[in-house]
Amino acid sequence: MKRIITISREFGSGGRTIGKGVAEKLGIPCYDHEVIEQLVERSGFAADYVKSQSEYAPNGSLFVNALNAGNFHGLSNQDKLWTMQRQIIEELGEKENCVIVGRCADYILRDRADCLKVFIHRDFQSRAERIVQVYGETEVPTEKRLKEKDKRRAAYYQFYTDQKWADLANYHIVLDSGVIGIEKCIDIIADLY
Amino acid sequence: MKRIITISREFGSGGRTIGKGVAEKLGIPCYDHEVIEQLVERSGFAADYVKSQSEYAPNGSLFVNALNAGNFHGLSNQDKLWTMQRQIIEELGEKENCVIVGRCADYILRDRADCLKVFIHRDFQSRAERIVQVYGETEVPTEKRLKEKDKRRAAYYQFYTDQKWADLANYHIVLDSGVIGIEKCIDIIADLY
Repeated sequence: MKRIITISREFGSGGRTIGKGVAEKLGIPCYDHEVIEQLVERSGFAADYVKSQSEYAPNGSLFVNALNAGNFHGLSNQDKLWTMQRQIIEELGEKENCVIVGRCADYILRDRADCLKVFIHRDFQSRAERIVQVYGETEVPTEKRLKEKDKRRAAYYQFYTDQKWADLANYHIVLDSGVIGIEKCIDIIADLY
Repeated sequence: MKRIITISREFGSGGRTIGKGVAEKLGIPCYDHEVIEQLVERSGFAADYVKSQSEYAPNGSLFVNALNAGNFHGLSNQDKLWTMQRQIIEELGEKENCVIVGRCADYILRDRADCLKVFIHRDFQSRAERIVQVYGETEVPTEKRLKEKDKRRAAYYQFYTDQKWADLANYHIVLDSGVIGIEKCIDIIADLY
């Protein structure tokens, strides 16, 4: 069984940066946007469409899609993408030791790999400051943007995993990256591996 | 401002053992049962009564008391004990650097000390095994005992702090002591201090 670190995170908490740092320190690959890229390739959908149907969706229709999906016998595009994403993650989990950021990997690999399940969070205000620093300003006010992303991520996770988002029972270690610091989070996780 | 480590924990997770281990490693005191002892002394109530009205209550009436408390102008005994407990914890938080296990110290000291807020959890089955090992069998079946303690602790915490119990947003670090191991938990927390 491969040894995988899954990193779930609140938007703006620095979870992706931490994932990359841990992977670098351990000399193993870190998968994040690579999953989206593979999804674009396999699905034949346009990259923007795939992103808009994933947890990265910039605005709105995800939850509605997810609900509608249950009302039809065929699979919605949303559901097809979920199925492909699950396959990609399962393949990663069988291929090599690695870090996987987001994408419900903690749930998908729960019985298939020796997972260290990590959750990264941070207080709202400091996430708001961080996303402006890292991603820049957009037309949507920062607070609104953050709240929407939080809602979207939680809805996506809960719909497809049937588990509550951000429930500490699902994680082996949960870190507040604002208080503990990104570097220290990397050290602790890499050391635990 | 004193530097305090507060350890909240699920019953049977080993949080108390971890608290003591951290305190020993750092050469600072660990307060746990000492708070109850002071509470007995100050309140003049019998030790068993104080325990039965606290989160350690072996059976039942806590939540009912907590609800009733709101219906009277005077303070219930439960509320008096909470007020005294809060004072004891506030005094500890002003006196010295220390570890405090349970007793809503994370909430009570939130603006009064430089707190590292820790939560320790562990899966239900392994907690059930651990409480039999540590506390021995009782007449009440282990699973029932565990579920009641969980409910009591959550109700107590939520009633007096107005915060959700076991909400990861309230903690700087959350550790699964079953997966990570008691010794490793001690190392990580002591190192973070």
